[in-house]
Formats: sequence, structure tokens, C-alpha cells
Amino acid sequence: MTTLAMPPGRVTLKQGGGGRAMRALIEKLFVRDFATLPQQGFDTGVGIAAMDDGAAMKIGDDWLVITTDSHVIHPIFFPGGDIGRLSISGTVNDLAMMGATRVLGMTCSVILEEGFAIESLETIQQSMVAACREANAPVVTGDTKVMGRGELDGIVINTTGIGLTRTLVRDNGLSAGDRIIVTGSIGEHGLAVMVARHGIEIEGDLVSDVAPMSSMIATIAGHVTAMKDPTRGGVSSALHEMASKSGVGIVIDERAVPVLPAVRAAGELLGIDPLHVANEGKALLGVRPDAAESVLTRLRAHPLGRRAAIIGTCVAERPGSIVLDTGFGRRLLAEPEGEPLPRIC
Amino acid sequence: MTTLAMPPGRVTLKQGGGGRAMRALIEKLFVRDFATLPQQGFDTGVGIAAMDDGAAMKIGDDWLVITTDSHVIHPIFFPGGDIGRLSISGTVNDLAMMGATRVLGMTCSVILEEGFAIESLETIQQSMVAACREANAPVVTGDTKVMGRGELDGIVINTTGIGLTRTLVRDNGLSAGDRIIVTGSIGEHGLAVMVARHGIEIEGDLVSDVAPMSSMIATIAGHVTAMKDPTRGGVSSALHEMASKSGVGIVIDERAVPVLPAVRAAGELLGIDPLHVANEGKALLGVRPDAAESVLTRLRAHPLGRRAAIIGTCVAERPGSIVLDTGFGRRLLAEPEGEPLPRIC
Repeated sequence: MTTLAMPPGRVTLKQGGGGRAMRALIEKLFVRDFATLPQQGFDTGVGIAAMDDGAAMKIGDDWLVITTDSHVIHPIFFPGGDIGRLSISGTVNDLAMMGATRVLGMTCSVILEEGFAIESLETIQQSMVAACREANAPVVTGDTKVMGRGELDGIVINTTGIGLTRTLVRDNGLSAGDRIIVTGSIGEHGLAVMVARHGIEIEGDLVSDVAPMSSMIATIAGHVTAMKDPTRGGVSSALHEMASKSGVGIVIDERAVPVLPAVRAAGELLGIDPLHVANEGKALLGVRPDAAESVLTRLRAHPLGRRAAIIGTCVAERPGSIVLDTGFGRRLLAEPEGEPLPRIC
Repeated sequence: MTTLAMPPGRVTLKQGGGGRAMRALIEKLFVRDFATLPQQGFDTGVGIAAMDDGAAMKIGDDWLVITTDSHVIHPIFFPGGDIGRLSISGTVNDLAMMGATRVLGMTCSVILEEGFAIESLETIQQSMVAACREANAPVVTGDTKVMGRGELDGIVINTTGIGLTRTLVRDNGLSAGDRIIVTGSIGEHGLAVMVARHGIEIEGDLVSDVAPMSSMIATIAGHVTAMKDPTRGGVSSALHEMASKSGVGIVIDERAVPVLPAVRAAGELLGIDPLHVANEGKALLGVRPDAAESVLTRLRAHPLGRRAAIIGTCVAERPGSIVLDTGFGRRLLAEPEGEPLPRIC
């Protein structure tokens, strides 16, 4: 991984955006020292040293996977979901991306601002329970804190999950020739949140895709070479990380990338490329070429995967780069510094 | 557990204080629904349904324990520690209280306010690493989010930990005749933070006791009937919960409870009973009478346990009540509604 410049003296919004700026902060500050601690049974090929979203350790024949996410989304209620559904889905999906579609349990830690409406909290709680049922994933313990009025903007939720898998999937397993599949249309979460935040009028339905993907991912277990969910920084950021860690280039056929008309419209209006925007119910997979069609068929048989598509191919040239084939020519896709807008998840 | 009145329409500071008010909120809102989810392999005798600080499931011959805490302390730097040391110690201690003195790994999720000083973040990070070394506990993965200026008061940190233990310790295992031991002098964390927050001048040293207790607790493994760390709500809140869950009364010899002169002075000045104030490096244990002296000897041999003392006895009468024997007479110790001041941990 390239060494990036030391962050400046003050934390910036960009450093929370999931892109290069955030990676620099984490790499320089957290990874440097935490990675020097003995990682007990944890595999140092994943986890803190690899700057992964989760860590894994072998327990008997299985891998125990652990992942954590704090959710600071604004607004907390948005078309297609709320912070409760997001916090369960985000953690379930991070586990699923490592192959752990069987969730052992999750923790739920809520920080509230004094004066937060109990009714809103009840709605959020109901949403979490519904998402838990979809994912067959229980919340097993939690924590509640309250900060004073004006000390926190409403509510933030941390969810941490543990899961088991026989086969650990990583985001660095791509090799030349692998096909890249996206499990559905992209850009919906980020653009739905932005449109809701700014009260923009858009033709057509624009709703977040936020959903727990474990049951869909379980149908393709063992058939993928690498997997990652394109959250903060979107498809572009996720592909860059997969390509960089795997040491391959990726050529994306832009016309094959599923984008809904409402997403395209909102993206054009806001000047934001849907490739750079967070998704919360989509995955990017690498598959061997001979497995691509069968994986596609399995995905499309699941309600969350109906629009799954093969969107690209891994190549040996230009490792770490993403080449966009527009149909008229080829150009390099830039890696975003971070999510274009803060508090998207 | 007695059913408490439904919380009012808005979240109050008291509901974050760790006492009756918080329990009512959690019980009515979170436990009600999360506990209806299939808890997979998790033991329903601990965890969400029992409103415990952690949950446990059997894996082979061992118990896998998981616990979570978000830390919102103010000020973030205080005499004896900072939010970094607190966040590692808090989670290590919650695991240790369930017998899991062997920490497999921890997650660290940081939420920062835009403009937060990188230098402060580095100090906090160094503190976390030092506490990890003391506890022999690695951070294995993490998450970073940034909120806008004015949307969060500086920094909050969630730490979630998993640990293994052959013998699960609960907070409900007391029976009549058991002795109650406290592992050291009480009230230091809460009063040190309050004094720092309000810039009060006190004679003598008043520093937080914040420390990871796993190495001390490991020396008494297998010799306790129940264990709990008296954090928010202090010794009083913890004893009430242990007594109530175990179905015993507890008689405390007030003169035997170790309280440092500076704590006594600060408590009197602020009108706060040290029995009601958070500790972050102390444990309350139940032990069979014939094991009490040997447990005390082991504790005192550890640097964190030098002031350990036998402070009370469990009785069959008045289950759920704490009787304070002052030497002049006996009175019931009231269960605090919550920590007297917010953001103590």
C-alpha cells in the first residue's frame, strides 16, 4: 500500500469518508501501533494490519470473524430505511463479505442526545429487529449512553458482529482473468440520503438499497475469489482497494454497470458519479471465468440480486488501477479521496 | 426484576447514568424486542434478556464471551487516565467480570468531530496501546467516522471485546453466607472526573483508578460465586443488581469499605456518596466463607488489589436489599436512579 502524507493538525470531514484521506489517517495513527500488539490467534493477513473491515481467527475448523461499525448517518430517517436498519445491515454485510453468512451474534451500543424523542427510538428499534430477522442474526448484548443537549446530533449506533465461516473470503483474492460481478444496481443509498438531506425533488423513486445480504451471499459461498461491499466511496473505492490488495488491474465495462434512471438523474443533478457513492445492500465479487454464469444465476434467483451483472474483468496490467471502458474508449477511473458527502452511513 | 414506569417522551440524561432510570429505558425498549430474536447458541441466562453487560455462548468446552461499551466521558483527559485508557479498560473488565480474563480481541470504533486535534488523537491512541499491553489484549479491527463541527463534542469511542473462559462467572451467583469482597478503595474514578470537570481544588491526590483488571482477576479464577465491576451508579448500584438477581440481601460493614481521604473529602464537598460513584478498576466479588481469606491474599498480592477488603455478607432476608451497618446502627442503602453526573465513562 502506498504511504500517504501525514494528516494535518485537525481532523477533517474528508477523513471520515472512506477514501484515501481516511486511509491515511487510520494507517498513520491506528494501524501503526495497534498492529504492533501480539494479535493472539488472529490472522495477521486480515484485520488491523491489512486495514480490513473485519478480523478473523481460526477456532477449530472454522474462522471466527469479527467486524465493527459506528453509524452516524444524517438524516436518521431516509427513503428506504433508517439508522436502525443501516446499523444491522452494515455489520451483517461486513461479516458476509468475509464469508461469515452465519451470524453468531451482534452487540448494539446506542449513544443518545438528551431530548431525543422516545418515539423515534422505538421506530429505530423496530427497524433493527426487522433487519435482524431478515439476517437471522440476534443482538445479544448492548450498551446505552446519553450525552447532553447539543453534545451529539441525535443518535449514533455502534454494531459489532461475530460470525463463523468454514471458508474465509478476503478482498485480495483476485487474479487475472477473474470476472467482476456486482449484485445489483448501484448508487442508491448515497444518492437517496443526499436527496433526502437536501430536500431535492427527483423524478421517479429513489430509495436506499440498505439490506442485510447474508442470505443472498450464502447461495454463492465457495464460488468467489474475493468480495467487498461498496459502501463509503462507492464502487470506485471498493474496486481500487480490491485491485490494489490483489495486485491486478480491473477493466470495467461502464455500459454493463446497472444504474437506475432515478440514480442517474440525481447523480447528474448533484454532479456526483454513482460509481463514487455508497451502497448498503450491494456486493462486488470476483469469480473464476468458468463460474461467472452460474454465480450470476444464483444471485438473480435471490430477491436482492435480481439485477446482478458481470461488469468487468481482472487483468495483469496496471495493478491497482481501474480502467473504465466507456464503449467509446478507455479511461482511468480516479480513486475518490472520500465519500463526496459526510455522514452517509 | 420489578417493572418500572415507561420513560417519558424524551430521553433524559439520567437514562444514561447506569441506574434505575436507564434500566427502565433499556428494559422497555431494547430488551423487549431483541430478546424475542432466536439467540442462536447464546445462553439466554446471560446477555440481552438478563440485561447483562455481556453475552456468552458455548464453543466446544469454552464459553465465548462478548461485551460492548461506548465511551462518552467528559473531559476526555482526566487525572489518572483518558478516554483511550478508559475504553480499553472498560471492555477488558467487562470480559474479566464474566471470567474471560483471556481476551481474544477487541474492536475499536472511533467517532471524531471535525476539527478535533490530531495530537490529542495520538495521545489517546498511545493510551489505548499501553492499556492493551497491560491487559495482553489486542485491537484486531476498527472503524473511523467523522461528524461535522458542532455535531459531536470531540470524540466518542466504542470498544467491543471477545474472550474465552472455561468457567463462566455471572453476577447472580450469590447465596446466603457468601462474603462480599471489594478489590480496592472506591469512588476514585467518578470523583476524579467530577473534580477535573469543575476545576475544584482538593487536598491530596485524587486520580482515577482506571485500569484493566484481567491479570488480577485471573489469579482468583474459579474461586468466586459472582462478580461485577461497580462502574456507573457505583458500588451501590452494582450490589443492588447482584443482590436482586441472586435473590439475597447483602449486609455491608460501612467501616470496612476502603475509601481514600481525598475521595472522602471530594465526596463531602460535592455532596456525593462514594458508594454511588463510578469505579473503573475495581470489582465486587462474592466468595464462599471458607475461601474468603485465600481470595483476599491473592488479590492483595497483585498491584491493583493491595487494598482489597471483605466488606459484607449475604443473607437470606430482604432479597434485593442492601443493608448498611454503620457501626452505630443499620439502614437501607438506596439504589441510585443513576450516576449523579453524566458522561462519567
